[in-house]
Amino acid sequence: MSLGDKHKYFTDPIHGLVSVPKGLVLKLVDHSYVQRLRRIRQLGLGYLVFPGSEHSRFSHAIGSMGLMQRVINSLKEKNTTITRSEHEAVLIGILLHDIGHGPFSHTLEQTLISDFHHEMMTLALMRRLNEEFDGQLSLAIDILSGQYKKQFLHQLISSQLDMDRLDYLKRDSIYSGVLEGSIGIDRIIKTMRVFQGNVVIENKGIYAIENYITARRLMYMQVYQHKTVLSADKLLQSILQRAIDLMADGQEIFIPSPALKYFIIERPTAKKGLSTRVISNYIQLDDNDLLMSIKCWEREKDPILSDLCNRFLTRRFFRTTFLKSNQTQPNISEYIQKTLIALKKLGLPANEKTVNYYLFSDSIVNEAYRYDTESIWVMEDEKTAVEFSRAADTKNITALTQSVVKPYIIHLKEVS
Amino acid sequence: MSLGDKHKYFTDPIHGLVSVPKGLVLKLVDHSYVQRLRRIRQLGLGYLVFPGSEHSRFSHAIGSMGLMQRVINSLKEKNTTITRSEHEAVLIGILLHDIGHGPFSHTLEQTLISDFHHEMMTLALMRRLNEEFDGQLSLAIDILSGQYKKQFLHQLISSQLDMDRLDYLKRDSIYSGVLEGSIGIDRIIKTMRVFQGNVVIENKGIYAIENYITARRLMYMQVYQHKTVLSADKLLQSILQRAIDLMADGQEIFIPSPALKYFIIERPTAKKGLSTRVISNYIQLDDNDLLMSIKCWEREKDPILSDLCNRFLTRRFFRTTFLKSNQTQPNISEYIQKTLIALKKLGLPANEKTVNYYLFSDSIVNEAYRYDTESIWVMEDEKTAVEFSRAADTKNITALTQSVVKPYIIHLKEVS
Amino acid sequence: MSLGDKHKYFTDPIHGLVSVPKGLVLKLVDHSYVQRLRRIRQLGLGYLVFPGSEHSRFSHAIGSMGLMQRVINSLKEKNTTITRSEHEAVLIGILLHDIGHGPFSHTLEQTLISDFHHEMMTLALMRRLNEEFDGQLSLAIDILSGQYKKQFLHQLISSQLDMDRLDYLKRDSIYSGVLEGSIGIDRIIKTMRVFQGNVVIENKGIYAIENYITARRLMYMQVYQHKTVLSADKLLQSILQRAIDLMADGQEIFIPSPALKYFIIERPTAKKGLSTRVISNYIQLDDNDLLMSIKCWEREKDPILSDLCNRFLTRRFFRTTFLKSNQTQPNISEYIQKTLIALKKLGLPANEKTVNYYLFSDSIVNEAYRYDTESIWVMEDEKTAVEFSRAADTKNITALTQSVVKPYIIHLKEVS
Amino acid sequence: MSLGDKHKYFTDPIHGLVSVPKGLVLKLVDHSYVQRLRRIRQLGLGYLVFPGSEHSRFSHAIGSMGLMQRVINSLKEKNTTITRSEHEAVLIGILLHDIGHGPFSHTLEQTLISDFHHEMMTLALMRRLNEEFDGQLSLAIDILSGQYKKQFLHQLISSQLDMDRLDYLKRDSIYSGVLEGSIGIDRIIKTMRVFQGNVVIENKGIYAIENYITARRLMYMQVYQHKTVLSADKLLQSILQRAIDLMADGQEIFIPSPALKYFIIERPTAKKGLSTRVISNYIQLDDNDLLMSIKCWEREKDPILSDLCNRFLTRRFFRTTFLKSNQTQPNISEYIQKTLIALKKLGLPANEKTVNYYLFSDSIVNEAYRYDTESIWVMEDEKTAVEFSRAADTKNITALTQSVVKPYIIHLKEVS
Repeated sequence: MSLGDKHKYFTDPIHGLVSVPKGLVLKLVDHSYVQRLRRIRQLGLGYLVFPGSEHSRFSHAIGSMGLMQRVINSLKEKNTTITRSEHEAVLIGILLHDIGHGPFSHTLEQTLISDFHHEMMTLALMRRLNEEFDGQLSLAIDILSGQYKKQFLHQLISSQLDMDRLDYLKRDSIYSGVLEGSIGIDRIIKTMRVFQGNVVIENKGIYAIENYITARRLMYMQVYQHKTVLSADKLLQSILQRAIDLMADGQEIFIPSPALKYFIIERPTAKKGLSTRVISNYIQLDDNDLLMSIKCWEREKDPILSDLCNRFLTRRFFRTTFLKSNQTQPNISEYIQKTLIALKKLGLPANEKTVNYYLFSDSIVNEAYRYDTESIWVMEDEKTAVEFSRAADTKNITALTQSVVKPYIIHLKEVS
Repeated sequence: MSLGDKHKYFTDPIHGLVSVPKGLVLKLVDHSYVQRLRRIRQLGLGYLVFPGSEHSRFSHAIGSMGLMQRVINSLKEKNTTITRSEHEAVLIGILLHDIGHGPFSHTLEQTLISDFHHEMMTLALMRRLNEEFDGQLSLAIDILSGQYKKQFLHQLISSQLDMDRLDYLKRDSIYSGVLEGSIGIDRIIKTMRVFQGNVVIENKGIYAIENYITARRLMYMQVYQHKTVLSADKLLQSILQRAIDLMADGQEIFIPSPALKYFIIERPTAKKGLSTRVISNYIQLDDNDLLMSIKCWEREKDPILSDLCNRFLTRRFFRTTFLKSNQTQPNISEYIQKTLIALKKLGLPANEKTVNYYLFSDSIVNEAYRYDTESIWVMEDEKTAVEFSRAADTKNITALTQSVVKPYIIHLKEVS
Repeated sequence: MSLGDKHKYFTDPIHGLVSVPKGLVLKLVDHSYVQRLRRIRQLGLGYLVFPGSEHSRFSHAIGSMGLMQRVINSLKEKNTTITRSEHEAVLIGILLHDIGHGPFSHTLEQTLISDFHHEMMTLALMRRLNEEFDGQLSLAIDILSGQYKKQFLHQLISSQLDMDRLDYLKRDSIYSGVLEGSIGIDRIIKTMRVFQGNVVIENKGIYAIENYITARRLMYMQVYQHKTVLSADKLLQSILQRAIDLMADGQEIFIPSPALKYFIIERPTAKKGLSTRVISNYIQLDDNDLLMSIKCWEREKDPILSDLCNRFLTRRFFRTTFLKSNQTQPNISEYIQKTLIALKKLGLPANEKTVNYYLFSDSIVNEAYRYDTESIWVMEDEKTAVEFSRAADTKNITALTQSVVKPYIIHLKEVS
Repeated sequence: MSLGDKHKYFTDPIHGLVSVPKGLVLKLVDHSYVQRLRRIRQLGLGYLVFPGSEHSRFSHAIGSMGLMQRVINSLKEKNTTITRSEHEAVLIGILLHDIGHGPFSHTLEQTLISDFHHEMMTLALMRRLNEEFDGQLSLAIDILSGQYKKQFLHQLISSQLDMDRLDYLKRDSIYSGVLEGSIGIDRIIKTMRVFQGNVVIENKGIYAIENYITARRLMYMQVYQHKTVLSADKLLQSILQRAIDLMADGQEIFIPSPALKYFIIERPTAKKGLSTRVISNYIQLDDNDLLMSIKCWEREKDPILSDLCNRFLTRRFFRTTFLKSNQTQPNISEYIQKTLIALKKLGLPANEKTVNYYLFSDSIVNEAYRYDTESIWVMEDEKTAVEFSRAADTKNITALTQSVVKPYIIHLKEVS
């Protein structure tokens, strides 16, 4: 056997060479469930605003696994006991933590399946894989779902300071070109340790944490909740909703994707869990099914569907208007009136039903950091850990724990 | 009017903020022909080997335009006369230089349309746009096709040292994580000047050029011609070819994409130019049509098509074997025999026709730098320009002008 | 004349190629007053904690000038009128804004000359240069001292968001390796404009500003006021003070630097301005004079001076203890007692006078951002500018305007 | 004991956090011999041309140690046996490999001590340290001097592909801002393995090696042998030589540095080894002694010494003229005549003796890669290693093994 044969290296632009253990972990990487993530954009429609951010959930999964390797090695150097099986399980956990995501990540979750969250699908798919691989994923499932005794392993996958977030913040910041989101991963990872069973940050890491929280806030404001991204999301939801409505109404349209057709016609719910048929169709779904459909639907005779798709393909998005800080309620009826006039001018059916595809009222919530069970804890000295927003000299962070709600209207550009 | 309203800024991870003039240029950026480039991966199937390199031709187009802005400003500072119209035209030229590309960039060019090169399509689409925009693209077309008197403008778009190459080398290097391809764009651009009507490099830029040529070679060896990329290309070509053969043979399969269906059934040629129908279908085509089809075809009953698609979706690629340097001809008949045996074991039809989908003999040519009409010229002193490989102290570059041909076989992993 | 002859390019690791106009500006760069900055470390003793940060005031001056070039070009593109003379003057202003700094930047300012601030020396030296260059620096002096009508030019050199700060934050962050200090200069510069005669930030730049302020705070906490840097500063001050005291006491020591000897013996004051003799000696002084002296003084027979110098050369610094947040006054007399005991154990004269060289009580003030006449203003819409901390959604920044005072004790490691 | 107490982290801009084991290694880092490296610029006078490259031998030593940590961990993962003592010894070896360097690294080696190479001093100082630390450095000395059985440990410190070179190439490239010297350290280190007792590179690392060799060549051409650096070197040598000649001639000058005074007056030789007195004075010497002296000597009455020092302090360097490729011998007598005329015009003594301080004939040799006992070996397959320039497809590297000699003249600017 070759000496270099225990790992395969993936070349990652963010973290350099990522070593993936051959065997079970590499088999999972190559599995179609994980490979499917290559066809789901990490930032949903963010690439339409930040042209560089075309990266997929797959590269994020590989990157998160790379960070997990580093933090595990660092914790071991600090004498934390992590067995070989735990090490493998936590790698699997982070690799698979996102396999339940659907097309364009979060955008269509609710439109495709009612009462659905992608975490449900992640767990369902992991259980399927566990069967396929004869129970070898049991420990990974326990860790991911928080059932395993060593809580710190769960926290490394899922908490307010996990490998998932460290990877996506850095990755999204670099790929989007928004430098304000840059964080010092190296310092955060090297100042992590396990204290009383939980992940904590050593005192010398507190400024890296402050930077991480601020960067998170700025990425939300500048990228994730960018007003054009918000409006592109609504446009995509409108397109899918219009297709659903047309089919429900008996107005047949061509749906190139069989899996998408299933969801449009059957309109499944997750209320009573996920059926085998839902799962089987879901794993066939990715960004391509939507983009393919939009290209076809641009040529459909329904003027609304056609218009919406053409807007998508030529970047004629709706406009987002945030309410002024002293305004709590938008004047919706005025917006409706103006939208009706605009629709008429555009030669589209000017009725209340159509307005639903062209006018939206919603709000964003910005929580850079929350004080809850998954908070970040820092060591004040060798014997005391304290929750971060309650540590000394963090007035600005304390200010950030108060979540800010910003209502907005999305409307036709013609509706000023 | 707002003072900042003359440009729109695009945030690019490689070059920072790129300023795009509002008006014609921005209208072209938002045109569906250019927006389509968002759905074509710059490195074709390279993302299957380098997970970070999922960037599109669109971000490359924006980036190249950003470099064009910089070099034009730099040349103006050196007193080169460039009129406002020339400035706009050269931006349009570089923006549109790639709009003729098809799905996965180069991979399927020949399979979709016989006797075709994407440059033909680029020109055809520019002519269409010129009509749509009332002749405003005439100068850009002249510059791109080398008809305009100021040759240096053409050279900035298309030569061995143009903004296209500067952008893609840097971009592909960073997105793939292969640092060996990194180049010093700033120095190259700032040492460019116009001498006797042509772009030349000032003496102090020669090492940046040497680095550029070497980096180009290394990107070919490590990325563009990576053996797994070569084999993924063949797999994709096999898939499309199998679909074509089945349909030609009357074995109907479901083709989700109407545009792709056109090419599969009609099998157009470019020998006598590009018909309106070819063009109309072509602009509907991008990576999604293929990926959507592959997902559908994995479930087709034809065992070969199904197997090929499944391989694609689970990364079970063929293997690439380069011939030893003293070997000039591969022992093809031996490979065929072994492939037949392997096909049988895999439960696939073990006949010569099937072998064509599973065995390939081809070769790569590496030309980091050529001595031809589009060569790079450097100033030896204030009055003399010399072709780069003939300049002093570049033995290593001279060695690189001899193109290296490397034959290889692509075959089933089971065929060692 | 060669076309490329109008500028000289400096290669800068932070900003790439910096173009310096030949003529007056380049002559000033090569002048001994500016070249002297090559021998003064930008971060004072910071390099003893962050080994990478060995950069000088000179590279900072060149870098700041590079940023000034960029912001001037950007403002011109936005139709702000800036004449050729104003352009040159503002380059000169930023180039020279730090020439008044002494050895190790801020550390010894007060010990060398009483009642002194380096800005006084900067102005004195600029006036000398103005004489030497026949009045060509008059406009630069007016701009720097805020006398010139176009206030925005002054603000680009000196305000809470000037080219000086943009350069040093980015530079110090990268050289020290403390990524938390990284800022998005490109976005800040490109969203600057002149509004009613003042520099303001366009609305789309507000998150870059928030990041800038937070980064500034973090650089203060992590680097500029790092506890080991604070203690190294005190050690260096002690060394110089001991040398002064010995000489005052008639205990002759060898002082290798004639200029330093002048300051040690004459002990000048700046109360009545700076005499010609003070200036002439000051421009001979840089880091070398101190380091050279410390090496010599390590071998002096005075046990205190020798001990202090040996500590400096082998990194045996004092220890810094910050007072707990609920403690307002340190128990100084207890510290003095313990220091006396420790000195005795170390074989040093254990009296109150010696304690002054080994025990210090001081405090740091952290003001990431102040609300004052040099505040940052942002555009809320096309017609209204608002001070940044009063803009919407900046609770965390508002929190930072309350300056935090942190008292600390610096003491022998043996004094726990 | 705290869990994090086994290592101290140094923050390095090039490699991130570098972990240094507490105990012997950290004690050596803080030793005055190693701390002295903080006062010796890594690139000698290179900072006078590349303002960013003001970094010291100390940061290079820390960085090289960081790389050593990484390669040792990587080799261990590949099952190479490296004991705890060997690990520590190889860290010590790389940390100390440069402690024998004198002021401005290589520039003055021959002028200070005849027949001297800094490696002699490195070994002498390591022996001193070995005594001071009771023999704990014996293994490190054996490894560094090639006496230890495991040759690969020596090769990691000193060969054509050692941690020393990997660090300085990357560091010098980044600090100087010359991107052409950038290399892919991660890939090189991760493809290193031990084969038959020697360090070799796995096949997949060959392009990283090709890039490394080319980058090395480019750093020599662009930075290390930059014509202004060559001329600054000669100027510094002239200054020291003039001081020596004056003192030898009985014309007393003030020498602020006692250690430098020793070398100027005693003019020691290394022919018979290094005496205790030589060593004791040498370790007192660094860049400061020279810079301090130059500042003093600018005011000496000897017109030659004063002129040379003033040139140094105001960047009025000599000019470097490379001979044309067809020219093998410069016309020295013509240069001498012109220099005499120029000296006269400058008001300096116009005689042959003076010419020696103002005119130099020398040559540079560029050997990016040599075929010798310390060559780089790569694996062709699992069983065969081959020397790199003899591996397939490296014509350009083979071309580089022919060393290029470039003669040049350094002369007054007035001598065209």
